[in-house]
Amino acid sequence: MKNTFGTSVTVTLFGESHGPEIGAVIDGLAPGIPVDESFIASRLTLRRPAGRVSTARREADAFRVVSGVFEGRTTGTPLAILIPNADTRSGDYQRGPARPGHADFTAFAKYHGFEDYRGGGHFSGRVTAALVAAGAVVLGALNAKGILLGTHIARCAGIDDAPFGENIVAALEKLNEMPFAVLDEARGEMMREAIEAAAARGDSVGGILETVVLGLPAGIGEPWFDTMEGVLSHALFSVPAVKGVEFGSGFALADMYGSEANDPLRVRDSRPVTVTNHNGGVNGGITNGMPLKFRCAVKPTPSIALEQLTVNPLTGEETLLRVAGRHDPAIVHRARIVVDSVTALALADLLALRFGTDWLAEYNCEL
Amino acid sequence: MKNTFGTSVTVTLFGESHGPEIGAVIDGLAPGIPVDESFIASRLTLRRPAGRVSTARREADAFRVVSGVFEGRTTGTPLAILIPNADTRSGDYQRGPARPGHADFTAFAKYHGFEDYRGGGHFSGRVTAALVAAGAVVLGALNAKGILLGTHIARCAGIDDAPFGENIVAALEKLNEMPFAVLDEARGEMMREAIEAAAARGDSVGGILETVVLGLPAGIGEPWFDTMEGVLSHALFSVPAVKGVEFGSGFALADMYGSEANDPLRVRDSRPVTVTNHNGGVNGGITNGMPLKFRCAVKPTPSIALEQLTVNPLTGEETLLRVAGRHDPAIVHRARIVVDSVTALALADLLALRFGTDWLAEYNCEL
Amino acid sequence: MKNTFGTSVTVTLFGESHGPEIGAVIDGLAPGIPVDESFIASRLTLRRPAGRVSTARREADAFRVVSGVFEGRTTGTPLAILIPNADTRSGDYQRGPARPGHADFTAFAKYHGFEDYRGGGHFSGRVTAALVAAGAVVLGALNAKGILLGTHIARCAGIDDAPFGENIVAALEKLNEMPFAVLDEARGEMMREAIEAAAARGDSVGGILETVVLGLPAGIGEPWFDTMEGVLSHALFSVPAVKGVEFGSGFALADMYGSEANDPLRVRDSRPVTVTNHNGGVNGGITNGMPLKFRCAVKPTPSIALEQLTVNPLTGEETLLRVAGRHDPAIVHRARIVVDSVTALALADLLALRFGTDWLAEYNCEL
Amino acid sequence: MKNTFGTSVTVTLFGESHGPEIGAVIDGLAPGIPVDESFIASRLTLRRPAGRVSTARREADAFRVVSGVFEGRTTGTPLAILIPNADTRSGDYQRGPARPGHADFTAFAKYHGFEDYRGGGHFSGRVTAALVAAGAVVLGALNAKGILLGTHIARCAGIDDAPFGENIVAALEKLNEMPFAVLDEARGEMMREAIEAAAARGDSVGGILETVVLGLPAGIGEPWFDTMEGVLSHALFSVPAVKGVEFGSGFALADMYGSEANDPLRVRDSRPVTVTNHNGGVNGGITNGMPLKFRCAVKPTPSIALEQLTVNPLTGEETLLRVAGRHDPAIVHRARIVVDSVTALALADLLALRFGTDWLAEYNCEL
Repeated sequence: MKNTFGTSVTVTLFGESHGPEIGAVIDGLAPGIPVDESFIASRLTLRRPAGRVSTARREADAFRVVSGVFEGRTTGTPLAILIPNADTRSGDYQRGPARPGHADFTAFAKYHGFEDYRGGGHFSGRVTAALVAAGAVVLGALNAKGILLGTHIARCAGIDDAPFGENIVAALEKLNEMPFAVLDEARGEMMREAIEAAAARGDSVGGILETVVLGLPAGIGEPWFDTMEGVLSHALFSVPAVKGVEFGSGFALADMYGSEANDPLRVRDSRPVTVTNHNGGVNGGITNGMPLKFRCAVKPTPSIALEQLTVNPLTGEETLLRVAGRHDPAIVHRARIVVDSVTALALADLLALRFGTDWLAEYNCEL
Repeated sequence: MKNTFGTSVTVTLFGESHGPEIGAVIDGLAPGIPVDESFIASRLTLRRPAGRVSTARREADAFRVVSGVFEGRTTGTPLAILIPNADTRSGDYQRGPARPGHADFTAFAKYHGFEDYRGGGHFSGRVTAALVAAGAVVLGALNAKGILLGTHIARCAGIDDAPFGENIVAALEKLNEMPFAVLDEARGEMMREAIEAAAARGDSVGGILETVVLGLPAGIGEPWFDTMEGVLSHALFSVPAVKGVEFGSGFALADMYGSEANDPLRVRDSRPVTVTNHNGGVNGGITNGMPLKFRCAVKPTPSIALEQLTVNPLTGEETLLRVAGRHDPAIVHRARIVVDSVTALALADLLALRFGTDWLAEYNCEL
Repeated sequence: MKNTFGTSVTVTLFGESHGPEIGAVIDGLAPGIPVDESFIASRLTLRRPAGRVSTARREADAFRVVSGVFEGRTTGTPLAILIPNADTRSGDYQRGPARPGHADFTAFAKYHGFEDYRGGGHFSGRVTAALVAAGAVVLGALNAKGILLGTHIARCAGIDDAPFGENIVAALEKLNEMPFAVLDEARGEMMREAIEAAAARGDSVGGILETVVLGLPAGIGEPWFDTMEGVLSHALFSVPAVKGVEFGSGFALADMYGSEANDPLRVRDSRPVTVTNHNGGVNGGITNGMPLKFRCAVKPTPSIALEQLTVNPLTGEETLLRVAGRHDPAIVHRARIVVDSVTALALADLLALRFGTDWLAEYNCEL
Repeated sequence: MKNTFGTSVTVTLFGESHGPEIGAVIDGLAPGIPVDESFIASRLTLRRPAGRVSTARREADAFRVVSGVFEGRTTGTPLAILIPNADTRSGDYQRGPARPGHADFTAFAKYHGFEDYRGGGHFSGRVTAALVAAGAVVLGALNAKGILLGTHIARCAGIDDAPFGENIVAALEKLNEMPFAVLDEARGEMMREAIEAAAARGDSVGGILETVVLGLPAGIGEPWFDTMEGVLSHALFSVPAVKGVEFGSGFALADMYGSEANDPLRVRDSRPVTVTNHNGGVNGGITNGMPLKFRCAVKPTPSIALEQLTVNPLTGEETLLRVAGRHDPAIVHRARIVVDSVTALALADLLALRFGTDWLAEYNCEL
């Protein structure tokens, strides 16, 4: 399905970095979900480059919801969000050598040179603005159903954030307000300094994002193929720069013994819970009612000012390149919002498949 | 689509550990692909528990191809493979406490207790025999198109295998013959000793599998959602015990600078290639023609003989459990074949979408 | 998705006329649905050639449910049904001239001659046995939810059956027991005589099937593309020999005025109902709670004993052909059961999408 | 997939009659297809109400292609077309009694009253403008590959058009220029008079559309479920007011003998062709290379000025209604363009699945 994700609740993305508008269409949303445009705007603000660790490109992100909402609530028919591209300096971009680490060469190989190469075209992180707006609609609905989610920068430029403490709900609420989402602000400041130091050298850094979802019922996911991990990872690898996804203790499980990795079960408040959560809330591909936990590896932004060897796909010749234009010395803090967005969309889809199309709005299905 | 994977080439799994038969249906295969039953049998043998580091359960895996093959070649219509379950000791399994780390509790939550709980039912690793048989059909066709793939145990019980050397083709060919697939057999022996030591304590170990695919054309995958990483990871998380997937340098990219992580391009044999391969052959979700590389984290087998705290989902009561029956002290060496199989199936699907349904057999489309 | 139909509840078909087994896999069924093997057997008996108006081929249809059922109820995991092909006289069939009106030539064009041509291979009506068995599982569940459906031979060999009278429930129940399903048995006898007369001349006849579904809730279907009519017709055109599908008054609506065709609404038993039902229970692609009504045009069986001009696809030469082997002089009475089956499967899918995966079994979700 | 159609080439619709914009997203198009905006405009003009037999509503249909086209050709990434709604007189529409024959009641049942009821909302024929624009992009590409298609009003208000003559290519070319597409203009004039006469009485009429596709290769379609007839009918029932679809001789086949209905094969120009075409170019669900022929029954426009009995879904009370506003006394001539559009989109999808994603543009894959 290419640029569409989902089965019952679907999202379709379109647009290019330097085209007139980008957008997203969400279909399959329950009718009657309140759509709070100020919440969408706030999520777009969090995604937007901000401060000294982001690109100088500034977009107002003046989105328009052109369908699927009537009198402030979803209608149940496709919801389209359009975002005009205001600040596009096409002069900065011309077809030239492929930027290493970017999709320039692969797009050329796939589209035979017909792709809109300006600013990365359809591959641009700019398109995530539409994804974040779509995710915000769904995220609001999930929150109203008691499902909370949030992401922190677990590691950046080699610096670890603090782990989640006892009060995860409070931590998630706080993270969801922060432009640079860390649990320990001192560590966050160290990360920002490291980003700036790399930027000063014309270089960039990567990091790891850790996401927690609370309130998911047990029993979501399928035994083969449409496992919770499989469906989420399918969506998460769309977040630009994500190169790895692990659930629970992930790669660290490879070094554990079964007696450590198995999460023993006990009873709390009359329901089975696990003592530890090395499996990240998923067993056999299906949620167990514990917090869903996963981590995404985010590679350093490929656009760097340092000189790199590369090839011009049109001529087939080697050349040296310094990437001009406005770029992020790190993408991990902005990718955070995109991770939340695709997570919300994927979960909404799985929940609608399980409980029916009205489920996401059931609490407020009154005229 | 639940227990079906793929769009143009699809695979559907069915069956339970202790039912009469398990099976797989592959649809969308090009007509005219030679089907070599001895190759299928050899792949099933590699999957089968063998030697001192596997369960004592022995299945002859006497598969039958009941449709979709005529006079030794695929017909282009659905190919169904059935495998009878011969050696099922139902007496070993009774509904009881949920085995920690297994799907027992989540299956109960999802299916309300109607699931076939015997031996893990549809969640059993037994079902992977059908998946391996299906994968073998496709793998043979990919090989004939010059696409080679293979997987080694990159790490097990804390012991690293050697990395791939210069001659990857030879390494893959050798790995594809080995029941315990390592590049350095001395390290493999150390791993097996560690597995045995854990088994002797009633415990189990995990590991990491590293897969390489050679010969994939550039330009396969989509920019959003159906990225090469997204589609492959969707399939890979179906391999029992896989809890993490990373492409190229994966999580290690989080600690690199852009100047290290970007793979510079140069020209070799008149085509663009990268100097390094930290991106694992994928940029922007699309193959770049370099070797596709990814790693899967495999958790330790959850079935262990040691006593564990758990809950009986029927009664809702806490209890202590020692898992009886025949179990693997490590699954990583057997998961290897399953990883290869889902990789082959996912790649065949993406290639058929890109090049059309006949592509996989084009070389031999003669009566 | 080729030989798979559905989104939430799916059915996958495999097998060929002269292969060892045919089968169907249903996935996405709610757990806890009672599976009555004698009901499946009775549906297969109704499909089976019977009496003087059918082929002499006799199959015992000794099906086996090999997965997805445990202790008499669905588990919620894939349910596979296998049916061995017992009575295959391969000697009757050899690759030769394309039988006019059959798929012989189109299969050759699509599969380049690799298809299993014996008895029509995967295109054979034989494969509908698996479809009928799958439909029976779902039909039983729909009935238990108060959704009834049935089909009569509205026309055959130019002879009209009587229309439905007042008591549709009783009519459906009676139809569902009849091998040759007509509302007026005298008309049915005339039809059978006309079939026999055609058979005596080596010819065959067609007919029209009319289906009614009672008990469907209002609100099922989508405005664009996945309309109730679109989804059902997608499935119905898989029934061999169906060449037309119309809903409500169908093609007769083309000659009506709006004032006749619009179904005025009134209130009965506190809910809106239509006075007439020219729209067949569907407006704007969505059910309105009235009986769902549609008709399928069934062409005469293409296998006839009369001499026909045709081409041998292998040699590309014209030739004359008399189709040998055992054939039905009419297929309409047997197609009836297949129409019911695909209708049941398509409705189960749409209902599961709307109300969630447990809906079909909710009444009996008790251990 | 609800408001999305297709597998390899997909189209997603959004928008409401009285919202700010409607639109369509086409994904999966080959890169390099020339996009001729004047051709899109001409198709929209043909769809637009025109002359005395259509609604007085006038829309400029000033569409914008906001993504997926670069330097006049498709990029291969999603192509979004937006069309603003200029002439919306919301005052004409208020939530009130359900209009008989419309989706008002079913939308209320499905969306619980949250639907945008103004002018039919998402169910409005207005949305077909986006569908026609999307279809035009694909139609141009099909034409360039030698695949021609067109539709005439085979019957309207009880008056038959002439059948296709010998030169179908010339007929299709002529039809594609006509706002009221008939093969015999004198019959067309009689139809228009009958429409006006009905309109003068406050009533409306229906008709039958007949479509022919030339140039399709043999071998397109699948044996079960994704038959050519099934996929096309799935799409065609989305065309507002279509209530029946038949292929070839369709319902007339029900009254034929096999010896009449079977299309004998002969050899012409070294390839097998059928002598007659009662099967409409499809056998066993797969094209045979003959002209693809189908007919759609179009019901009379439900909006009529005559008084009708109906129910107000909000109050549940019976009431009498005269539908105010601007309406078409017949929709059949406008539905024609929509039929062509969904046909083009469905065929493009099946062809891309069969031959790969580049096929539709192969002839011009040069920079």
